[in-house]
Amino acid sequence: MRCSIARSLDLVGEWWTMLVVREAFMGTTRFDAFQRNLGIAPNILSARLKRLVASGVLQRMPAGGARRQEYRLTEKGRDLFPVLMALLQWGDRWLAGPDGPPIRLLDRAAGLPVAVGVRSSDGRTLRPDDIRLVPGPGARDVKYRRFADTSGGAPPDG
Amino acid sequence: MRCSIARSLDLVGEWWTMLVVREAFMGTTRFDAFQRNLGIAPNILSARLKRLVASGVLQRMPAGGARRQEYRLTEKGRDLFPVLMALLQWGDRWLAGPDGPPIRLLDRAAGLPVAVGVRSSDGRTLRPDDIRLVPGPGARDVKYRRFADTSGGAPPDG
Repeated sequence: MRCSIARSLDLVGEWWTMLVVREAFMGTTRFDAFQRNLGIAPNILSARLKRLVASGVLQRMPAGGARRQEYRLTEKGRDLFPVLMALLQWGDRWLAGPDGPPIRLLDRAAGLPVAVGVRSSDGRTLRPDDIRLVPGPGARDVKYRRFADTSGGAPPDG
Repeated sequence: MRCSIARSLDLVGEWWTMLVVREAFMGTTRFDAFQRNLGIAPNILSARLKRLVASGVLQRMPAGGARRQEYRLTEKGRDLFPVLMALLQWGDRWLAGPDGPPIRLLDRAAGLPVAVGVRSSDGRTLRPDDIRLVPGPGARDVKYRRFADTSGGAPPDG
């Protein structure tokens, strides 16, 4: 599939993979720390780390000491930040238990809550109905022609 | 796991599930249209739709004609919009082929490009380092104590 959502999910749309990325954002860098924090089997962790390195989301580099390796987010990996924050926000709103979410995110400067949103390039917050889909440069497949005219509302089924 | 990211991934962190949600946002409502647009096997589609209805992301309702059912996003489902848009944005940036992304999203009012971002509640754009993690009301598990003091930077491994 050429759809960017499908391609993203193919790479990071797997439970453990995205939790490994979450750990990396939280500052975890070493294999044993990933394993301990996630409670993940070493072979599963190893496979996920390998794929994330191969796809350029993490980079593996020597750390201090013999045989020590560490894993750090690349620019491509750090750019997953809005994906993680959007998942966090949705889970906090809709799936947290009766006690509420276990972690809160505050912005470091002002201590204010954090929100993920979709905006136009001039800063207006957009809702689904505010957005129009148009074929992009990679729209070769016939199935993308259904986006050629969405100005009248949501495209029809099919 | 109590983490909201983990809970979100448990519900929607599966390739087909998120693509079914994508189709629903694009206006698809009927079983045969989901099947045709996604190229998905009927039994897989049926299981995904059932789970999305059971978890309150989609609602099933009678449509015109005998035996017709349609699936529509609930409020909880529509709230997945930033997750989908964040996945789309990342895939457009990092995974599109040489032709570029197949779909472009423009805001309907001004025709401007759309962007997903993380912001403080007073509107400043935030990067990962601008955010502080603190234990939330649901932080009963000992493993969340590592967020009790992150004011000095990223928490250490472990």
